[in-house]
Amino acid sequence: MIGVCYPKGFKACGVIAGFRQRPDFALVVSDKICNIAGVFTTNAFKAAPVLDDMKKVKEGKAQVLVINSGTANACTGSQGDRDVLDTCNYASKILNIPSSLILTASTGVIGRLLEMDKMYHGIDLGAKALGYDQGEIASRAIMTTDTVNKTCEKSLNIQGKEVKIGGMCKGSGMICPDMATTLCFITTDAEISSELLQKALSDNIELSFNSLTVDGDMSTNDTALCLANGLSGVKIEEDTETYKLFNNALCEILQSLAKKMAKDGEGATKYVEITVKGAKNYQDAKAVAKTVANSALCKTAIFGEDPNWGRVLCATGRSGAYVEPKLCNLWFEDVKIVERGEPLKVSPKIAHETMSGKEFHITIDLGLGDGEATIFTCDLSYEYVKINAEYTT
Amino acid sequence: MIGVCYPKGFKACGVIAGFRQRPDFALVVSDKICNIAGVFTTNAFKAAPVLDDMKKVKEGKAQVLVINSGTANACTGSQGDRDVLDTCNYASKILNIPSSLILTASTGVIGRLLEMDKMYHGIDLGAKALGYDQGEIASRAIMTTDTVNKTCEKSLNIQGKEVKIGGMCKGSGMICPDMATTLCFITTDAEISSELLQKALSDNIELSFNSLTVDGDMSTNDTALCLANGLSGVKIEEDTETYKLFNNALCEILQSLAKKMAKDGEGATKYVEITVKGAKNYQDAKAVAKTVANSALCKTAIFGEDPNWGRVLCATGRSGAYVEPKLCNLWFEDVKIVERGEPLKVSPKIAHETMSGKEFHITIDLGLGDGEATIFTCDLSYEYVKINAEYTT
Repeated sequence: MIGVCYPKGFKACGVIAGFRQRPDFALVVSDKICNIAGVFTTNAFKAAPVLDDMKKVKEGKAQVLVINSGTANACTGSQGDRDVLDTCNYASKILNIPSSLILTASTGVIGRLLEMDKMYHGIDLGAKALGYDQGEIASRAIMTTDTVNKTCEKSLNIQGKEVKIGGMCKGSGMICPDMATTLCFITTDAEISSELLQKALSDNIELSFNSLTVDGDMSTNDTALCLANGLSGVKIEEDTETYKLFNNALCEILQSLAKKMAKDGEGATKYVEITVKGAKNYQDAKAVAKTVANSALCKTAIFGEDPNWGRVLCATGRSGAYVEPKLCNLWFEDVKIVERGEPLKVSPKIAHETMSGKEFHITIDLGLGDGEATIFTCDLSYEYVKINAEYTT
Repeated sequence: MIGVCYPKGFKACGVIAGFRQRPDFALVVSDKICNIAGVFTTNAFKAAPVLDDMKKVKEGKAQVLVINSGTANACTGSQGDRDVLDTCNYASKILNIPSSLILTASTGVIGRLLEMDKMYHGIDLGAKALGYDQGEIASRAIMTTDTVNKTCEKSLNIQGKEVKIGGMCKGSGMICPDMATTLCFITTDAEISSELLQKALSDNIELSFNSLTVDGDMSTNDTALCLANGLSGVKIEEDTETYKLFNNALCEILQSLAKKMAKDGEGATKYVEITVKGAKNYQDAKAVAKTVANSALCKTAIFGEDPNWGRVLCATGRSGAYVEPKLCNLWFEDVKIVERGEPLKVSPKIAHETMSGKEFHITIDLGLGDGEATIFTCDLSYEYVKINAEYTT
């Protein structure tokens, strides 16, 4: 069992509703009503499904996810809100589950109305295709410009019983930290209150999806939802060893999915990690790492395997973080390039070689304090421009 | 007379010092000691010449500019500071002008030491090549990835006498508002105190160079310097009609140079203006305009002439400005696309046609207040990636 179908009691499906000529519609249905948690985009233009989900997450219960790719139902005015309502009502009728327990998520072109005949067709087909072994196709049906599907599973042994967490996500452009990024769905058979699940999700989002950037653009649709149906029979309570285990496993799942997103960044040829340490505090460390990760000049240099490290310090210096140039140290992989603000004599050939792999790590030590943060990102290639110059037309 | 040589009493030159196989070194020398003003990068990693100029601008006097392209002398540690000192001392000896009146500016690769033999060679050659008619070649010698040189001239008639302002600038990448951008040199024969000149320069930088972005990267070397030698015999004093005339002319010169930079943005195929009105205040308007202008997704869509206007609202919504989605209006050129948050039925063909020219204007009305700002920028093409993936190597 893969992804969202990995924990007990979760069915899923992926079908072709007609938004695209490939799987473009997914359902996730739990056998039992779930306690739920969610984090959403902070963009002022929140998509219609995001606004509806936010209300339902406050109630803390759900049983169904309805997800389409191809159209984002964002910036669609009042018709967009009506379309979400109609989607939930129709799914409720077909699945025989109250509309209040149905969450929706959309991804694709912004500003285009949802074609409701296709949504209804997807629900009709999807209801028939639901299965405990359909997690893989569900993860494919939520892709847009993604080139690979992204799932993750983890099993925990707690007091002799097995607790499972599974997840899937999509997204490779319009990705930047500040909230759960694009679409991420986590299922678990742990028994956990929606309040505690929300705490675990919110705490771990910061170190995973909010530490990820592809292009600095935060979407209107960013959604991470977590559903817990309790079918493992293992109860997770606050301030216990059990919670720690669960929380760590959830963090691993979210980080693993976030890294998969960076690796599949639009047009990416390299996975890149930027680690900043020695900052005055965590916020400063993250500001520096994020500024380097979003710098078009750093990203294109990494694509070209050009050891133009001055661009990294330049981005560091404009990050808004407190920086003392004469205390800064910089490494490309394990080769030290700058020591206490002075460039070391590193041959261009050796510096270039640090960049030639499929993964590339930059470490910046500001020499000031204990603040440390890591950002997951990728390079910027011709292909990114091509993908985004030709997206809707 | 062109650019910095347009006002009375300014000589200049452009020569090949050897940093590149084309003009790469410029001098600007005033016949008379000038009152001066300057604005500089806010990047924590300020280049060595920037740090030296900042001290000299506080004193308010200068007579010479020494400028090289090819090496930025930034992130060069203590050797970088010594190289600026040696440059000024050598130029002082050759030109017979005190070192304290000599300003320097460098542009090019960050993290590479200045090759002093080339600097000395440039000073030797440059001193012989100085002329009142060499403004054009000087503007060519300061270019890096620029594809055209950028100069501007303006003449004012004040109480029957002529006052002239001239300028040159360079820069097409690593350009983002927040301070004078890359290198900009303004000369004038007005008689004006360094305090008042500083006020005029600082006030107008906000509406010109600080309203310009190519790629969101603020350089370590950003410098705008203004030299006034007083040779017109026209005195400019605070709170007078004369100051208003001078101030407006300076603003026009700076805006004209800033727009030339946007048009020559690295890899740019289109000049783009983003105007935001109806914001709560100027800061919010600028935040929205800047976020749209720096969005890789918006920039690539403009390059592809893809009327994917949802990306513009998406960037608007994540700008940090106060936004009410249901009050927003959006135009591409003069075609209204969104009215009070509802997408209008505009055919993709008509929307596409608004994008087909060499210039493209986006207008966003937030419907909230009187705040208005315009940002000058350009699109993001394959060529930008190419230029920046292959820069140092």
